[in-house]
Formats: sequence, structure tokens, C-alpha cells
Amino acid sequence: MSILLDSPVDALRQYVSFPSVSADQSFADGVSGAREFACSRLKELGFEVDLIPTPIHPIILATRGDPSWPRLVIYGHYDVQPPDPLDLWTTDPFDAVERDGRLYGRGAADNKGPQIVHMSALARVFRDNPDYPLHITYLIEGEEEIGSPSFRGFLEEHKQKLQGDLLLVSDTGSPGADQLVVTTGLRGLSAMEVKIFGPKQDLHSGVHGGALLNPLQALMQACASLHDQEGRVTVPGFYDAVRPPEQWEREELAKLPITEEDYAKFLGVPEFFPPPGYSSLEGIRFCPTLEFNGVGGGYQGEGSKTVIPAEAFAKITCRLVPDQKSEDIANKVRQAIEEACPSAVRVEVELKGGGDPYVVIPPGKPGSSGQESELMKKAFSVAEDCIESGFGTRPIFLREGGSIPIIQDLKELAGLDSLMIGLFTNEDNLHAPDESFNLTIMDRAINSFEEFFKQLI
Amino acid sequence: MSILLDSPVDALRQYVSFPSVSADQSFADGVSGAREFACSRLKELGFEVDLIPTPIHPIILATRGDPSWPRLVIYGHYDVQPPDPLDLWTTDPFDAVERDGRLYGRGAADNKGPQIVHMSALARVFRDNPDYPLHITYLIEGEEEIGSPSFRGFLEEHKQKLQGDLLLVSDTGSPGADQLVVTTGLRGLSAMEVKIFGPKQDLHSGVHGGALLNPLQALMQACASLHDQEGRVTVPGFYDAVRPPEQWEREELAKLPITEEDYAKFLGVPEFFPPPGYSSLEGIRFCPTLEFNGVGGGYQGEGSKTVIPAEAFAKITCRLVPDQKSEDIANKVRQAIEEACPSAVRVEVELKGGGDPYVVIPPGKPGSSGQESELMKKAFSVAEDCIESGFGTRPIFLREGGSIPIIQDLKELAGLDSLMIGLFTNEDNLHAPDESFNLTIMDRAINSFEEFFKQLI
Repeated sequence: MSILLDSPVDALRQYVSFPSVSADQSFADGVSGAREFACSRLKELGFEVDLIPTPIHPIILATRGDPSWPRLVIYGHYDVQPPDPLDLWTTDPFDAVERDGRLYGRGAADNKGPQIVHMSALARVFRDNPDYPLHITYLIEGEEEIGSPSFRGFLEEHKQKLQGDLLLVSDTGSPGADQLVVTTGLRGLSAMEVKIFGPKQDLHSGVHGGALLNPLQALMQACASLHDQEGRVTVPGFYDAVRPPEQWEREELAKLPITEEDYAKFLGVPEFFPPPGYSSLEGIRFCPTLEFNGVGGGYQGEGSKTVIPAEAFAKITCRLVPDQKSEDIANKVRQAIEEACPSAVRVEVELKGGGDPYVVIPPGKPGSSGQESELMKKAFSVAEDCIESGFGTRPIFLREGGSIPIIQDLKELAGLDSLMIGLFTNEDNLHAPDESFNLTIMDRAINSFEEFFKQLI
Repeated sequence: MSILLDSPVDALRQYVSFPSVSADQSFADGVSGAREFACSRLKELGFEVDLIPTPIHPIILATRGDPSWPRLVIYGHYDVQPPDPLDLWTTDPFDAVERDGRLYGRGAADNKGPQIVHMSALARVFRDNPDYPLHITYLIEGEEEIGSPSFRGFLEEHKQKLQGDLLLVSDTGSPGADQLVVTTGLRGLSAMEVKIFGPKQDLHSGVHGGALLNPLQALMQACASLHDQEGRVTVPGFYDAVRPPEQWEREELAKLPITEEDYAKFLGVPEFFPPPGYSSLEGIRFCPTLEFNGVGGGYQGEGSKTVIPAEAFAKITCRLVPDQKSEDIANKVRQAIEEACPSAVRVEVELKGGGDPYVVIPPGKPGSSGQESELMKKAFSVAEDCIESGFGTRPIFLREGGSIPIIQDLKELAGLDSLMIGLFTNEDNLHAPDESFNLTIMDRAINSFEEFFKQLI
């Protein structure tokens, strides 16, 4: 286990050197290389490593310790996003380079760096206490960046192997090296595609315009009917199951070291447009959305072309908050769209799946059950102290706007609640050129996690 | 003038063989070849031919006869649409082939065939009466298929050369070989492009969704606000200048040998959506429209991508009817869009020009002025008889849904009213692969026009 102990940065550099792009078959060698690298590190750490086949990329399942000990499951993913556009990278995305306190490379932050943090911290723990009495199950998948299509099937088949007291995840974000966030909620997702069909082919707008309903007009009227002027979603029942944020959640959010002014500047928007009654930052974390991700139809080139298009489409995703259900919302939105479409066009709404939202109330906070496992209670408390000792500030407990559907799947099918400690930041350029991992965060996080594991037992 | 007399079809075949695609510089030889072919035919007919330079393709201006005679101006265009997609043509678009009573080739119907009809008819007239006492000015442009960008400038400079009593045009449509239409009106056009700008780059809909207004949402709400649920345009003042159709116009329209059922089948629409109070066919001819020709923004590929796009666009054209004004309508629509856009996004509406609608009331019909030139009065009356003798039915006098902005320009700047006799049909595939000209129509039309010219004087 020397590299994890001697040079975690070198370990990360090696891990990044395997181009494990799960979306592209031509990267098959990189995917298996990264998987083998992770398996080797786990074996060095004393884990018994299994590979569970899936229709695409196998899942690593590794365990160590006595099943009678408190049981922790650690999640990660060995695959990465495609590196395109390659010409926007300053250096080779798969030949990680250190610059200005960062390691640049695809996957450095998402999710290889955080995995090396966990492993290096465990290496120190096992070095000092080879019989460290925590049963640990590592679960590292290879399809996260393509939406974890095999994960639920795997879970249904192997959930008994994932019995445990808590899931540890570092695949969420924090504001920076001086302020970590413990993520207490993730939004769910509901995706669909709307297609509107009018005439059987594109028509001349002079020769035929005035006789028929333009599919773009029908599409835009149907889509526009889904929000009111203040931005509320008008789909009947859309907000019925929304759980309002606890007061402590609003207070935690207020601790975020970010001003609305800076945030607006960062986004480049003239002003915010949160749902009525919420600030912009609250809108992201506490409110569901209905977002148009792509709309198209008719002439897309330069200049003008006087055509009535034969069809038009809209790609829609809703971000969901507790206790909304993905399937329920999808059906409600579909119905609203179908009802908003005049019979002079034909409408098709294809549901594209999604996932339910997830929330965990930190033990002891208002709203918590008090029924949490001992390991979970201790972990949340110890994490707070150890993050403070590594980073100088106590973490903020916050729900996040993004979605990791497998977290709710693990809750639903394996009963696991999650402690999500965010190690990447906005500056890390996730999914973009020049992705990097902040080495100050890496160093501090290894220290914090070493202490965390040691105090946990 | 032998080819015009001996074989009009061969003349057309030769004219088509010059690929005069005005939109594409690489067809420069074809454009000049077609121009020279037209000039040669006019010279054979005894015209004095001038070429007027423009920034793109020269305009042919040719005259014959004594200026004291009644003066007729004849319009045509020697340029054609691009032939793409080439692989959908049954035979070479520029090697015209006769099949099933049609001559297939790009430009055969639009507009080379109708020009050969006029010229062949005149060839017979001049053969029988070399001193035929009608002053004729031929005006054949080479930029019609790219929107006649040089035409208005040419007109302002040379309008005195176009003084006349009537303009004859055959660049409109008719139902078929058994029923011609005399077009009495053309819709105007007003084009614009709307762009909505939100964040400075595409954003992750999980990380940022809920804080800001999605530009697609803003665009669709603004665009959807431009029509009511029944399809009326809601832009304030949009209909103010609309002149309702005369009763005789509705009656003429009712003579069109086409049923709503057949028309719906032809378009492939489940039902029509005309403005309230109008039939589908009336909607095209008597009503203005506000049509979305192209809308786009965000992810356009397969599957889904959870992005909030940085911007979105809509390409809009309005078709206008008398007495709407293109510029006035453009400004009204722009204002309505700007007012419908929340300040949380930035909106840009770029006006792309257009043209005013045109209408001519046939002399003697209700609504006509009685002040028409003698030539115009006679031409409308003689045309009706000669079309009946050539085609077996009297023509229908109808406004058309399409736009030929230069017709109103010629009215406005040169005082010319138009007699528009439609010689192409829906089956001719204008602007599409396998364009063809109906040779029955060609033959009948040459006979009718020969008689028309002879009876005119």
C-alpha cells in the first residue's frame, strides 16, 4: 500500500492515466485499466475484491473485516466523462499535470481524487491499526457518467451484500478549501421528450399558412402553459408532495460563503428568477423545477426560411425534492402537456425515466427520527469535528440541487442512509475541459478522513 | 425565332440546361448562360435588349414597339432554386427529360416554362403581324430565388423605363390543367429573429436550476403569448389594417375544385386550424399569419442532457394582407415580444425586412376604382375569354397566400398593376426534387396567350 501512503498525488496521477470513458466503446482499455487500478489498491489495503458483471462495465465490490463489526459501505465510480472538446485542454486530459496547487486531468475531481482520499486515509488507519474493527464494503461502479443504467438491477440482485449501517460518499460539491459541505439531500429527476406532429412534411408558409396549426406554435403554447408568469410550475399536483425546508436548513444555507451578487455575476444573468418565496440559493436546494433542456423544430440555419415545420420537440427534465416521486410527476406533466395540445396536431410524450429525490436528516437535527444506527449517529458527529480540525471550519449541512439517483436506490433497496462529504468545487471544471482537483483539499481531506475513521470506532 | 415557333418544349429544354442557381457562386456560368439564352430569344423576337448591372446578377430589360402604343411590361426571372438534394431526382435536374406529359428539370415550372409560353405566343403574334401595335417591355431578373435583393434599388433608378399600362406575370399557381387562376392578391411578408440570452454559458440544471429563468422558458412564454387559443394573433393592432375580403372573392374561392377533406389529406393534418370565422382556404388567402419557421435552443441530440441553455432563438415571419404594412407589423410584433420577456433574461429582436401585400381588383368587380388604364381593363376581360377557349373553363380570380414583394414594389414605384396568370401547379414540385412543368398546360397556355395578345389590340 506504499503509493497510497507515500504519495496520494502520484496514486491519483496513475488513476487518471487510465482514460475510463464509460460512454465510448473505444475507451474500453482505459475503463478496464482504471478498474484494475482500483482493484489493486483495494487488494493492497487488504480488501477481498469481487467483480460483478453488468451489461456494460463491471461493478467492483470489495470487503474487509468481520461482519459482526459496524458496517460501512463506501461508494465511488471509476468511470469518467468524455474529454471533448480536446482542444480546450491546456494539457493532455489523461496525463495529469500539477499546476498552481491543482492536479489537472479528466476524472481528477470526479471521482478519482475523492476515492484516493478515502483510500489513503484508510491506508494510514490500517497501517496504525491492522485490526481496525470496522467492516467496510467498497462499491465502485463504472457507469455513473452514463446514468448508472445497470445499477438498480445490480442492487436488486446483490442488495444483501450491501447490508450496512451507513453509506459514505464523496461525489458532491463544497464551496472551497476553507468550507466543506455535508450534503443532506439530492434532487430527484424525471425526464421526458415531447414531440408534436403537424403536416406530413415541411410546408411553404405562404402557400399553406393560415389553414393549419404550426407544430412549433402548439409546442410553445403547451410548454408555456407549464409555468405561470412568476415561474411556478402550474402542472396540477406538482407541488403536492413537496416537503418544505426545515428552519435549520435555511439557517445552514445562510452560512454559505457566497453572495447573491457574486453568484449572479458567476452565472452572467441580469437577475435571478427563483420560485416566489425563495431566494435563488434556496430555489436550487429546496424547490422542484421543470426545465426545458432542448427545444427545436423548423429551420435552424442562418437567415430565414418561410417554412411551417412538420414537427417540433422539447426535452424536459424535472428536478424533484422530497417527497415527490419521479414516476408520479412524470405522469402529471405528461397529462398536462397532452391536455394543453389542441387536436389540430398530434402529441407524443415519451417518459425517459429518472429517480426519486433523497434526503437524510442529520441525527439530532429537528426532523430526524432518532432511530439511526449507532454508526450513523457517530459518523455525522465525528465528521463535523474532523472536518473542522482539517479545514478550520465546521461543515455546512445542506441539500444540493443535483441528482445521484443511486443514493435513493441504495436507501430504498438496501436501507442505507448516506454521509456525503463534498470534496470538489465549482472551480474544478467537472465534465468540462481542464478538470482539476484542488490538492489543498486533497491533503486536508486525507487528514480529516484519517481522523474520522480513527474516531469512528 | 424558329425554336420558339417550332418547338417550345425544345426551347424550354435548352433554357433548363443552363443551371442558373442564383444562390451559389459556383453556378455563375449557368446563371450567365440562362441570361444569354433569354436575351437571344428576345433579340430573335425583335426586342432591343439591355443588361442592367446589379451587385449580384444583371437584370434583362428589353423593349419593342413604339412608345406611343399601349404599353405592357412582362416580368420573369431567369434564375432557379438549388437542385439539392440531388439524389432525390429521378433524372439530372439540368438535362430536362419528358415523362408522362411533363418536362422534368429545375426551373422548368419556376419560372422558365411560363417565360417560354409568353415568348412562343408572342412569336406567333409577331409572325402573323410584324407591326403588332403593342409596346412591350421585358423585365427578367436573376435574383428572384434569393429574395430579389437588388430589385428595389434597380427600380428606384430605372422606374421611368418601366412606365406602362399593365404588368403581365406568370409566376403564380393554378389548381391544374383544367382550371387556371388569375391571382388578384399576394400576401406581404415581415421577417424577424428573436434571441433570448440567459446565463453566459450552458448550465447544469441540477447545480443551478431553480435560481434563474431558463431562456427557452422565456422564449416559449413570449412566443406563446402572440396567439390566443383559437389561433388569433394577439399582438396589439395586428389586425387593424386588414381589409376584409369582398363577397365576390369568397364566391370565387368557393369555385376552387378542391375539397377541405382532400386538402387535409394532402397536408396530412388531423384537422385544420384557420382563424375563427374563416375556412382553411380562406385563412390562407384572406388572413394574415404569424408563423414560427424555426425555434431552437439547448440540447438537440439523441437522449437527454440536463442543461439550462445560455440562449434560445425563434425565427418568425408574418404573412400580411392588404392594407397591412410590413414595417408597421414588424414593429408591433417586436414590441409585443419585448414586453412579454421578463427582465431576468435579455431579449433581442432583429427585423429582417419583408414586403407589403399586393392586391388588384379586376376592373368592373365590386371595389374596383374604374380608373384603370384601357389596356388593363381590356387585358382582364380578354384573359378571361382566352383562358376559357384554351383551357375549357373560365379562370377563377383569387388572392394567393404566397408573397412576391416585387409586385407591390412595381405598383408603388412604377404605378404598375399586375395581371397574374398562374401556370404552375402543386404537382410541379417547385423548389423540390423532380420539379416539372405540365406540357398540357404549356400547350394550352401558348394558344391562350396567342389569342390574348391578338385580342388585346
